[in-house]
Amino acid sequence: MMHMQQPFNPRNRLNFSGGPGVLPECVLREVQEAIMEVPGVGLSILGISHRSDWFAAVVREAETNIRTLLGLPAGYHVLFLQGGATQQFAMVPMALPRAGKAPPEYLDTGYWSAKSIAEAQRVAPLRVIWSGRATGYRRLPTDAELSHAPDAAYLHYISNETVEGLQFSRVLGREDVTRVCDMSSDFLSRPCEAQRFALIYAHAQKNIGPAGVTIVLVRDEIVRQTPRDLPSCLDFRAQAEAHSIFNTPPVFAIYVVLLVTRWLLRDIGGLERMDSINRAKATSLYACLDAGGDFYRTRAAGVDRSLMNVAFSLPTPGLEREFLQEAGLAGFSGLEGHRAVGGLRASIYNALTLDAVSELCGFMADFRQRHPR
Amino acid sequence: MMHMQQPFNPRNRLNFSGGPGVLPECVLREVQEAIMEVPGVGLSILGISHRSDWFAAVVREAETNIRTLLGLPAGYHVLFLQGGATQQFAMVPMALPRAGKAPPEYLDTGYWSAKSIAEAQRVAPLRVIWSGRATGYRRLPTDAELSHAPDAAYLHYISNETVEGLQFSRVLGREDVTRVCDMSSDFLSRPCEAQRFALIYAHAQKNIGPAGVTIVLVRDEIVRQTPRDLPSCLDFRAQAEAHSIFNTPPVFAIYVVLLVTRWLLRDIGGLERMDSINRAKATSLYACLDAGGDFYRTRAAGVDRSLMNVAFSLPTPGLEREFLQEAGLAGFSGLEGHRAVGGLRASIYNALTLDAVSELCGFMADFRQRHPR
Repeated sequence: MMHMQQPFNPRNRLNFSGGPGVLPECVLREVQEAIMEVPGVGLSILGISHRSDWFAAVVREAETNIRTLLGLPAGYHVLFLQGGATQQFAMVPMALPRAGKAPPEYLDTGYWSAKSIAEAQRVAPLRVIWSGRATGYRRLPTDAELSHAPDAAYLHYISNETVEGLQFSRVLGREDVTRVCDMSSDFLSRPCEAQRFALIYAHAQKNIGPAGVTIVLVRDEIVRQTPRDLPSCLDFRAQAEAHSIFNTPPVFAIYVVLLVTRWLLRDIGGLERMDSINRAKATSLYACLDAGGDFYRTRAAGVDRSLMNVAFSLPTPGLEREFLQEAGLAGFSGLEGHRAVGGLRASIYNALTLDAVSELCGFMADFRQRHPR
Repeated sequence: MMHMQQPFNPRNRLNFSGGPGVLPECVLREVQEAIMEVPGVGLSILGISHRSDWFAAVVREAETNIRTLLGLPAGYHVLFLQGGATQQFAMVPMALPRAGKAPPEYLDTGYWSAKSIAEAQRVAPLRVIWSGRATGYRRLPTDAELSHAPDAAYLHYISNETVEGLQFSRVLGREDVTRVCDMSSDFLSRPCEAQRFALIYAHAQKNIGPAGVTIVLVRDEIVRQTPRDLPSCLDFRAQAEAHSIFNTPPVFAIYVVLLVTRWLLRDIGGLERMDSINRAKATSLYACLDAGGDFYRTRAAGVDRSLMNVAFSLPTPGLEREFLQEAGLAGFSGLEGHRAVGGLRASIYNALTLDAVSELCGFMADFRQRHPR
């Protein structure tokens, strides 16, 4: 670019929002240029036909990058859909075969799990095999607490609960039962043994792009079994046959996802490396929280603690308001807890840097010292 | 902005794509700045929470601007949804009451009408009251050709057929039958007597924004009658109650729609004015086509000619290829006809200027003179 760059507002770097979340500065710069002109095309990204060769290549490369990052074996479709995870909550029970099977098994591990269950129940009966609702969703189940039926139509769970800050660090369920996972808030944040899942879905707005596109990895055998009478917008088959261009897809959002996958491959160096960066960030932040006696109280404990969303609280609501106000003045944003649980939350998605976490830890240590109990 | 602006590639100005289409240069400049920092917020538009006060205000203002532009009376919801018009093809027959009524009436006036009918037929029976399919979709019906039942559940038609370049210049149907219209390709291009419709839908990527958001205007009485067992993603009620923020909406696309509605209100001066600019563009282009004897042949004739999409052909496929190649070298793009009908097409949506049309006319006159028959 020959023109001078717009300065990067440091608030972007300190954006701990639960989502839509922070994106890498280098990606934002490329997106900014593409708004006026996609290199090599000469048109704004907002005015390029979804039927162009250029966009078909965007979809192909984004798909290939996701396959490479996950080491995904053959036999899966990689789809770019609309409607968010909420739409997948309905599409999954509509698409997955259940004839001759026991009801699908769902885990109720937090705010979003509860939504997935309510939505799936509109479609057909299911069985909740574990629920943390009565205890305020403060921990995840152990394997000993889960009894999986061998004839369940499928198992559905959410790998990371953004609201409560709970994350599974293992794959659940039986290898002989269709496994479905909502990875919206930790997709491409770590290796995930994708080949053990029949279907994975993830909206983009946490780790991999802007709101408005949802990535679905689905085994071809699932696609081939979906009912033939579904509306096209809920039909994996229609989208798979059209390589995600059944009707006009969200061109811009898919392009940003492509740029983020390139960043993961080239700048970060893959998901093992991304995972170790994410672990370093989470370790640092939880250490800072734990160091403060009971001044900072995390919602989750032990292995259930999320590497993506660190939910915590302060001794009083007044202190929490003060914390948010001072944090805002110091350039931090997005630290309010989800409205469903209140408190505070620091979301530390892929693009949130270790430096930004260190700055937050510095602020938090200072805030605690200035407010002795 | 203190930084030097990225030069505006003139190809954007000469983008005659059928969609996603051209956007105003001033809007692209504002979007470009917002990618790095939304003025007054300090964060990238891609990293702002959809639950923020700022975004709630974006949705409110976009809604208000659309109401103002259309003179929409009270009693309508203005929704911002995902899934494109294709999703509406399915949502409409699912949502609209039909108990005790005759089947809904559909018009088959072109490529997109046929899609809307196929999708609605997956949901429930309907009656096609006119079809141009057998005659290659070369004209629209007259009122005398349409017989509307007084007890039809609803009437559905498409105001502008982008592929064939056919546009209705009148409102169809009976005042006592629920009227539904897909205005995807001419929404906000002219006044449309919105108050005569129970439901209007339009994806954004022709006249009002990027792909990834669909605007729906729907009477509250329709919303209140929608079935209670629909998946949330197909449920107008859920979206209306949540003011389009039921789950994470396509924040970026809605923001661009807001900027375009501001441009329509402030820079253009409303829909009457937009209509007169659009008429001037279409008049100029059709005059140029008609002036060439039978060198340029338009698909549509007379009052059915679209003000948005001018579909035409040349005497031979070889000449069409030559035309596209030379036009591309001269900076024009998007002039290929839709793959379903071939030929050529110049889409002249709101943001495509009269100057750009004049340049195209100049190119076309020159091309014709260089290829005497």
